[in-house]
Parts: sequence; structure tokens; C-alpha cells
Amino acid sequence: MNIISGGVCAPKGFAANGVHCGIRKNKSKRDLALIYSEFPANAAAVYTTNLVKGAPLTVTKNNLADGKAQAIICNSGNANTCNPNGIEIAEQMCKLVEKNLNINANDVIVASTGVIGQELSIDPIEGSMTELVKGLGDHSEKAAEAIMTTDTKIKEIAVSFLVDGVECRIGGIAKGSGMIHPNMATMLVFITTDCNISSEMLQVALSDDVKDTFNMISVDGDTSTNDMVAIMANGAAGNKDIQCKGEAYDIFAQALNTVTRHLCRAIAADGEGATKLLECKVSGADSESTAKAVAKAVVCSSLTKAAMFGADANWGRILCSIGYSNVEVDVEKVDVCFSSARGQINVCKSGMGVPFSEEKAKDILGESEITILIELNSGEVYATAWGCDLTYDYVRINGEYRS
Amino acid sequence: MNIISGGVCAPKGFAANGVHCGIRKNKSKRDLALIYSEFPANAAAVYTTNLVKGAPLTVTKNNLADGKAQAIICNSGNANTCNPNGIEIAEQMCKLVEKNLNINANDVIVASTGVIGQELSIDPIEGSMTELVKGLGDHSEKAAEAIMTTDTKIKEIAVSFLVDGVECRIGGIAKGSGMIHPNMATMLVFITTDCNISSEMLQVALSDDVKDTFNMISVDGDTSTNDMVAIMANGAAGNKDIQCKGEAYDIFAQALNTVTRHLCRAIAADGEGATKLLECKVSGADSESTAKAVAKAVVCSSLTKAAMFGADANWGRILCSIGYSNVEVDVEKVDVCFSSARGQINVCKSGMGVPFSEEKAKDILGESEITILIELNSGEVYATAWGCDLTYDYVRINGEYRS
Repeated sequence: MNIISGGVCAPKGFAANGVHCGIRKNKSKRDLALIYSEFPANAAAVYTTNLVKGAPLTVTKNNLADGKAQAIICNSGNANTCNPNGIEIAEQMCKLVEKNLNINANDVIVASTGVIGQELSIDPIEGSMTELVKGLGDHSEKAAEAIMTTDTKIKEIAVSFLVDGVECRIGGIAKGSGMIHPNMATMLVFITTDCNISSEMLQVALSDDVKDTFNMISVDGDTSTNDMVAIMANGAAGNKDIQCKGEAYDIFAQALNTVTRHLCRAIAADGEGATKLLECKVSGADSESTAKAVAKAVVCSSLTKAAMFGADANWGRILCSIGYSNVEVDVEKVDVCFSSARGQINVCKSGMGVPFSEEKAKDILGESEITILIELNSGEVYATAWGCDLTYDYVRINGEYRS
Repeated sequence: MNIISGGVCAPKGFAANGVHCGIRKNKSKRDLALIYSEFPANAAAVYTTNLVKGAPLTVTKNNLADGKAQAIICNSGNANTCNPNGIEIAEQMCKLVEKNLNINANDVIVASTGVIGQELSIDPIEGSMTELVKGLGDHSEKAAEAIMTTDTKIKEIAVSFLVDGVECRIGGIAKGSGMIHPNMATMLVFITTDCNISSEMLQVALSDDVKDTFNMISVDGDTSTNDMVAIMANGAAGNKDIQCKGEAYDIFAQALNTVTRHLCRAIAADGEGATKLLECKVSGADSESTAKAVAKAVVCSSLTKAAMFGADANWGRILCSIGYSNVEVDVEKVDVCFSSARGQINVCKSGMGVPFSEEKAKDILGESEITILIELNSGEVYATAWGCDLTYDYVRINGEYRS
């Protein structure tokens, strides 16, 4: 498998674009994205478990009932959620794609992200459709920018891999930042592939994958109303159709996982206000649910997140969050260790503190990527969760979000 | 029932003191508290559900097995948790009380709060015992100060009430601030009463009460390792012993609730870095568990907390947190309203936004006590939860806590 450039346009037969249509006041920020497959594609998606669901998700779910899609349209700046006319607007967005790309409105995946509860006007979107479609091309980064809200960095990746000797590609873009605590689904992630795979197997691969990737990240514990990961597979690579589990499926799933893990880390590292990526690796658990619960509790702890911001090796907060993670852990067996590009330091052995150099710890925790290693010494199962530090900027951004 | 002065010393036969013994470097901050009952008292307590438990809690649980206590000793600046010699130190603290007050070490409630995982030396405590005991008197506020960590305000209250025509009193002090997300127990709260009540009924009253009070507050979602609420009843008021449920018990429970609700609000309002008390009142629920889950989800949402800090009427975040609260709610029936001393404003009706004056909303949310009213329109049950805003100071305090 190779990392390649091109994002969602790396797979054959895909084009993308992003423009400023005017939903956002800042004219230098693109706010409308389009991803298009020249060929009808198999498609799958997973959605937020929040009971409050954005109208675009309802429309997308209906459109994906047949496992087919050919385009993705997504705006930022307005979530089109909790609005009386939300469904109508989301359907109009699909109709505009139908009209301008000459495809069926039912083959459009529609998404929105931004403020909840403010009506979304179709006008700026309608007014920019010609420009949006005309500019379709090798512009994954424009689409990636157009779906950003408070994100500070474009998030995209692509890989190539061989299935039965045939080269296939998967590319993806993501939008994260705030209200990030996915559960059985996730924030906005759009993935394209030219691999030939049935929509059923695509759904299996995606649903399986998110359990260990997007469901294991958290920025602030708030599960969004508009989370969605959608994937389109147009088969343009020409490999033999993947219709069941087996060697070809495994290769595809592994390539998909490379894409999703990259986007996960990128989302966590670019969490609202974040200065540091936190990776919590739990090993020695007696079950997967225990390993995952512990890892998530640690990356979700406000106190631990703030301590990491301050490069303070306050490991007691990590023990504390393990203790309230709602799973049975023998806390007297727990070892904790901090690690970064600057080295590694043991701070807790068998649930008790061990002497360590505060200076060395500060040095290690000063890095922008920190790994918290937790050994439970109770089994063989491991899990990883990703998060970020809690900073002044998180408060600033969210104290004035709508202003 | 009347609110009276005196805190934990308001009930007959109780004395208190607080001194600086030297666990904290700041000499102007008291760090060792003692509460003493002249007479042996019935006692009850509830404790944290965190699997990592402070050593003092283990010792206190043993000492309260017989439902009796006569003194409470508590230090701040060090949690005496995750230390190899924690139990030994906590027992030594009880022994020091035994020696200096001539009571049994088994009748001592011991507590510690502060940094986890640093060994607590008995020396500063031992060295200050004479001064601590000598100064015992009507000094509830000194004890209240001595148990504070990052708290900015002393938290105390007392009430008087009549049981069978006999005047009784209940007084309490509390320590809150950070790592506040109690579950089946709470932060440090010490309550005294001269009411004559059996230790069994005292435990029933306390365990019942915390479900609606301390278990309904959250500062940061982190459940501490050292949470405890303890109550001593010395019977000095001379009322007929309360040994079962009935009118006298109800009066006692109501008085207790007045004390605990006051301390709850005080703890939430003085949460780490907080500028505002958030009170979320949920009504119209079909069950108590639904009402409580919704109320807690709202006061725990980082995004909602940050919006309240910025006086931003971003009600979509409230709908969002209701939606992920893990209980069945018909979101299309939900109404939301903000209220404060400056008035009241409806922002959401039947799950959708309603037009409102942003200026008026900003004015209402500018106050230091904000109530979020949520009507679920699905039943008759209600619940209240308390929290605080998320501010720059929370990040500052917790980024440099150990420094």
C-alpha cells in the first residue's frame, strides 16, 4: 500500500470542487463542496446516533436506501438542523445537483455543518451551482476547505493498493474541530474509491472500521447532530467485484483503515483550540469494551486535557478517569507512561506513583503529539483513542461561535 | 424553617477549627480542618463510586461501620490517594485526633483533598494538632476555608427547624471547584445536626437526598477519587429520637435538603474558573431517569458551558446535548427558554427555533445565575441539575495545577 496525493480525486473517475457561495460572511472561506463520480457508484454511510438529526442526514439515508450514489454536496456555515423547512432545503440541494450534473437527485449524498437552528437559504447555493460544477476537477483540497468550520487545517489523504493484481485507490477528506464525540458514526468524512466492491460489502467495511477509528476520537464529549461518514465506490479500477469477505476484502478494509486512521488523527490534532494530539493506547485489558472505555475516558477527561495543555505530568487525573470509566479495572495493577518524540517516562506502577524527573516529563509533554500508554496487566486486549488538549482557544472559539 | 448563621457550629454541641499546618506552601491558606462533637454522635456517609478510592475513604468506611462518630479531620493540598502508605497515614490522622481529643480513633471521619499520587507526610499535621484542638470553637468558616482547594469562596449554611415542637439545627460546609461530577456520592461535604435521629435513618435520609442534590451537579465531568458527604447527629437538641419514616423524619429530610441544595448551588457557582451558575430545570418528562439524564447532559456539555460564558444564546447546542443524553426523548416536542434576574426568553419551540431578540438574550445571559428551562411535553416529571460555565480560567487553573 502506498500513500499518494490527490485526496478524494485520487481514485479514477472522481472530480471535486469547493467555492465560496456566501453562506459564510468571510469571502475568503469556501463554504460549498461537491464531489462527483463520472460513473454511478456503490455507496454506504454511517450516521450520528444523536436523537436530534440534521435534515440532510434524513435525506441522505433515503437516497442511499438503494446503495447507489454519484455525487456529494456539502455546505458549511449552517447545519440545516432544527429548522422547520430543513428537509425541503436538503432535497432542493439534491435537485440542484440533479439539474446541473444531469444525474438523479436520489443519487446525491447531502450534508451540512455549522450553526444549529438557523434557517438555511437555498439562494446562495443555487446562485453558485454553475461555478461549482464548472470548476469540477482535481481539486480535493478545495472541497476539503469548503467543508471546514473552525478547523484550521485541510484534512485529506489517499492510498493505492493492489486487489487481485489490479491497482485501486481510496481517498478521503474530513471536517472535524468541535462537537466531536462520535458514537456509531462520526463527523463529516467523505471517502471515494475506484475499487469495485458491492454496496453491501462497502457498508460492512465502513461500519466495522468506524468502531476502531472515528468512534474512538473525542474533542469535547459533544456528539454532533450532523455526523456522517459516506463512501462512494465507482469500480473504475476494474478489479473483480468484491462481493464477500476474503483476501480481496481484507486488503480493501486495510487500505480503508489507513485512510480513516489518518483522518482520525488529523481531526483530533485539529480539535477546536487544540495545540496537541493526545493518543491513549491501552493494553493488557481483559476485553475490548474495557480497553476502549478506559482509552476514551482518558482522552475525554477535561482535567487530563488541561494538564496536557500545561505539559503537567499530573498522572493522578489519568488514574482518576480510569476509575470512573464504568468498567471493571483492577486499579492496583495499572501502569502509566507518557511518550512523545522526546522520549518516554514511567509515572505510575501498580496504581501508585513512581519517582520521576519532572523536568524530563515536562520536556516530553511539550511536544505536539503525546501518547499516554496504559498497561492494565489483566489480559491481552488493546485499544487506542485519540483526543486533544483543552486550551484557552477552545473557550474563546465556543464563547463567541455565533458572533 | 429558618436560615441561621454558624455553619457546622450552629447545631448544639459542635465546635470547629481550621489552621495552616504546612501541607500547602501558601501560609495564608488554612489546610487542616477539625469538626468536633462534645457528645458521641450517630453518623452516616456516602462515598465516590470511582474505582480509584482515596485511602481516607477506606478508613472512614471502616470507622463508620458502627454508625458512630465524634470528629471529622480533613486536610487540603494532598489527596492521600494512590500512595503506598495512604491507609497508614489516614489511620495516623485518626490516632492524632484520638490522642488530642481523648476520643476513640474509630470515631473519627478522615478526609483529604488535593493532588493525587504524592505521599502525604504526617509531620505537618502532627505538628499542628495542639493549635488545631486548642482553637476549637464557633469557627465553622475556618474549617470551611481549610478544606478548600481551588475554591474561591467559603461554602457554609445552617438552618433551624422544629421536630415535635423541639428546635433542631443542621449545618454544613463544602469543598468543590474541580473534578466535580459526583455519582452516588459527592465532593467533600460535612454536615452536623443536633437532631436526635438514629444512624440508620440518618443514612437513609442522606442517601436519598444526594440523588437529587450532589449527584445532580457537574463542573467538568470528572468524578473525583475522594468524594464524600458525611453527617454527624449528636442529639443535643433533645427531640424524641427519629427511628423510622414519618412526619418528624420528613421535617428533618426537608431541612437537610435545604442545606444540601444550598451547598450544591454554591459548589456549582464556584466551579473551577466559573463566572456563572447554570441551573437546568427539566419538566414534562415521562420518568425521573429521563428528566435527570437530560438535565445533566445539558450542564455537562462543554459547548453549552462555553456558550454561556460568552452569553451566546446558542440553543442548538442544548438540543444537541438532549439528543445524545442516552434517553428516549421526542425532540420534536422540546421547548427551551433562558431565564435570569434580567428576564426570560423563549428560543426553541417544538424542537425548532423561534424568532427572538439577540440583544435581550445577551442581556439575560449576562447575569451570574442562569436558568435553562427545558419542557419535554411528554409527562409530569421534573428534575434540576447544576453546573457552571467553561472559562479561560478553568484551562489556566488546570494547565498549571501542580505547579
